[in-house]
Amino acid sequence: MNELLISLNRHKKTALYEQIYEHIKQDIMGGRLSHGERLPSARILAENLQVSRSTVDAAYGQLVSEGYLLAKRGSGYYVCDVAGLYDLAPEMLVKTQETVRGAYIPDSNSRCLGKNWPRPAEKRKTEENGNWPCNYNMLPGQIDSEAFSYGAWRKAGKEAMLEIEHELLLPGHPQGEYGLRRAVAHYLYQARGVCCMPEQLVVGAGNEYLLLLLGQILGHAGAVAMESPTYPQAYHTFWNMGYEMQAVPMDADGMLVQELARKDASLAYVMPSHQFPLGSVMPFKRRLQLLAWAQERPGCYIIEDDHDSEFRYKGKPIPSLQGMDRQGRVIYVGTFSNSIMPSIRVSYMVLPEELLRIYHRKCGFYASTVSRLIQMNVCKFIEDGGFGRHLNKMRRIYKGRHDLLLQLLKGRKWVRKIYGAHAGLHLAVELNCPLSEQEVLRRAKARGIMIQGIRECLIVNKKNTLNPVMLIGFGNLPEEKICAGIEALEQCVQLA
Amino acid sequence: MNELLISLNRHKKTALYEQIYEHIKQDIMGGRLSHGERLPSARILAENLQVSRSTVDAAYGQLVSEGYLLAKRGSGYYVCDVAGLYDLAPEMLVKTQETVRGAYIPDSNSRCLGKNWPRPAEKRKTEENGNWPCNYNMLPGQIDSEAFSYGAWRKAGKEAMLEIEHELLLPGHPQGEYGLRRAVAHYLYQARGVCCMPEQLVVGAGNEYLLLLLGQILGHAGAVAMESPTYPQAYHTFWNMGYEMQAVPMDADGMLVQELARKDASLAYVMPSHQFPLGSVMPFKRRLQLLAWAQERPGCYIIEDDHDSEFRYKGKPIPSLQGMDRQGRVIYVGTFSNSIMPSIRVSYMVLPEELLRIYHRKCGFYASTVSRLIQMNVCKFIEDGGFGRHLNKMRRIYKGRHDLLLQLLKGRKWVRKIYGAHAGLHLAVELNCPLSEQEVLRRAKARGIMIQGIRECLIVNKKNTLNPVMLIGFGNLPEEKICAGIEALEQCVQLA
Repeated sequence: MNELLISLNRHKKTALYEQIYEHIKQDIMGGRLSHGERLPSARILAENLQVSRSTVDAAYGQLVSEGYLLAKRGSGYYVCDVAGLYDLAPEMLVKTQETVRGAYIPDSNSRCLGKNWPRPAEKRKTEENGNWPCNYNMLPGQIDSEAFSYGAWRKAGKEAMLEIEHELLLPGHPQGEYGLRRAVAHYLYQARGVCCMPEQLVVGAGNEYLLLLLGQILGHAGAVAMESPTYPQAYHTFWNMGYEMQAVPMDADGMLVQELARKDASLAYVMPSHQFPLGSVMPFKRRLQLLAWAQERPGCYIIEDDHDSEFRYKGKPIPSLQGMDRQGRVIYVGTFSNSIMPSIRVSYMVLPEELLRIYHRKCGFYASTVSRLIQMNVCKFIEDGGFGRHLNKMRRIYKGRHDLLLQLLKGRKWVRKIYGAHAGLHLAVELNCPLSEQEVLRRAKARGIMIQGIRECLIVNKKNTLNPVMLIGFGNLPEEKICAGIEALEQCVQLA
Repeated sequence: MNELLISLNRHKKTALYEQIYEHIKQDIMGGRLSHGERLPSARILAENLQVSRSTVDAAYGQLVSEGYLLAKRGSGYYVCDVAGLYDLAPEMLVKTQETVRGAYIPDSNSRCLGKNWPRPAEKRKTEENGNWPCNYNMLPGQIDSEAFSYGAWRKAGKEAMLEIEHELLLPGHPQGEYGLRRAVAHYLYQARGVCCMPEQLVVGAGNEYLLLLLGQILGHAGAVAMESPTYPQAYHTFWNMGYEMQAVPMDADGMLVQELARKDASLAYVMPSHQFPLGSVMPFKRRLQLLAWAQERPGCYIIEDDHDSEFRYKGKPIPSLQGMDRQGRVIYVGTFSNSIMPSIRVSYMVLPEELLRIYHRKCGFYASTVSRLIQMNVCKFIEDGGFGRHLNKMRRIYKGRHDLLLQLLKGRKWVRKIYGAHAGLHLAVELNCPLSEQEVLRRAKARGIMIQGIRECLIVNKKNTLNPVMLIGFGNLPEEKICAGIEALEQCVQLA
């Protein structure tokens, strides 16, 4: 067992438990404490440091909640495998005072959540009381509403308000607050391997808005190539903009580039880190082929939608396609809908230099679509390290649900195949069942199970898919409900 | 002098000064205290009510700041002419609890400020320090950043946060929170004579976004008719959407309908309550002609942009065109950019039933572009009456600046004509000067005067306008700066 050498500064403003937490965290991230290593008991550490037992308990508790330590009943605390854990705070000490201060003068400037949208009738129904008869919310793209770090979020909000109180009333920068763009650029570089300057980032009110903006930057002409199944909101957004939609077959590695090459699309929309809804991850070789496709064709671009890559439960997150691109052919789109909250409506895209110039010329006059206060709230949340801690905390919670769900599904007769495990907030489950997908959905709804099938994600030949596939989301489904939820679902997939 | 009969309830939670304020305000709005009437002195009223002098001072102070009372030095307090004052709070007692509570499951759904936008070079320049060398900010569309009711705004924000803490994380309604839409519908009916159901309102992140959405609802085809000069952001937004732009000549009453009838436009974009930038008000007869134009032509619509009608300094605000429309041909667009703050990014549009159906079918899947927290903050601000009080307070401040500016400009040799007085946040001043508009702007910039000319609002024959016209905004120009600012401007318009 490692003798922890922690020097506490009792005159420091930071609480003692925070100093212990920070010290152990740095030892773990710095490799001085390695995976599986056992820590001294809280009692012993408290004695050594001459602090109260509760102080150490608080520090250990925090470390456990963020996935740095594992508490084994009756045995003690052990260092976790921290590959893929976020540690954003330290590098984030460049604060935004100066940029937050001045307002942008004289000019000023969605990801949908339920991945399916209701028919108008249903919409009206929810108009009044908003509530859906729901025992089990198994929709993908939902997030946990209990564990959210309200305290840290509100603290960041207060700081933001104090800092820009008066500037708040002046128009912000069309691309978004510079401070936020800098924080996002830094986060994307650390967490996603995205290489960009804050000047290349455009913050917008949700992915659909950013796609609308992109449509104006690229001009209306042309066709867009998408996988089938794909993310329906993106499909409908391009459709509404008058794009010709071209479905490209995909295999377990994602879009088939040789099929793409046969089309005349100038845009390819992909989700290489975690394809929606099947969760496939595009391997290195396929990524190179895709980049080559764009690079060999003047005016062709790849849209990389990196919607939920924050949550990966096995190994390290896969670096972004954008980071591999040396010729400015990838438009990277990301969102805070899953990592913070859907209703915040903050997304961002990284524009290659060439498109950035067009953006300035054609779209520079659009005011930002995100409130300055919300932007600064997010900026502070990231800079204070609250965001990184929140991601780690949620990752631990979601991993628990993911693992439980996977274990519950394995070996069931009605489960033919499970897609997209070990990442994201849902599993795609191909059913081994005599019923149609619609019928399963109908039965599920009757039992108060909110769940989505794969059909509405298919953009071609919806008919001839052999088996129904359910997208089982666990973002807003607590562990205690997962077990009963799966039993209830089992009732729906079997002949009465 | 009127003997004020005020019964105070000392057991009530509301502060005594608020009870006095509320009572006198209701007496004034109810006509029991009439214009010009003198109120008892603070000392006497304090004695009668057996409250401290400071309590009455607080109540009187509040009433003065909101424009109900006028304080004459050494003479006392007099009732103001309250025509056009807002009194929204009382009717607003329908609160939003029930609608706020439930989240919209399973699916979820700008006005630019400086009315001119910088060239990319300037944009970069401001990218780093954001600040502009500015002694006098005379840009139109700016608001006062000192007098904003931060307290009331933050209070509303806290209420919003507490009320929807957990729902906050769930997707909101695509059209915007029902509670907000109800409050806005109520406000629009009271203040602007707009007749609509909350179900017809779509809340969006700025006017430009709403126009983009409208473009998708209406389909890309067709031409849009605009006045020249007009609001440049709207012009460029339609242009970016691929609309054919048709300039329609205007006179002092606004767009010439017989000229419009000669075009083949299916959309007419107008600002009948206060045209930007000339501030003309469309009279009743012209409004009827315009409505007739749309009603006689299937598929033709009028977009009524009601951007800054909150501030009118003479007589009552002009009711909206939408309120006169009986056949669903007017799309009403409004914003909180001027009435609350530009950086909040909250606008709204009222869709006629026919377009609402298309919206649900084609665009119902778009998540709202405004953060739920911001929406609820605005909702609470309106419901608590803070918004109404803020409007009255700002109206008084802006009227003071407007009157002073008007008085300073009258009779100057270099002032040929003044357009758009008695409303809004700027005056359009036609110059009697040998210099070109560009030259005046260049000189102004060199003297640290931020000001806009009319040329960039012209969408046809920019050349042959005879004289330069300056748009002198006073929204963010305190009275003490107006005098010096006009002197500085005078230096720019005369030959050295």
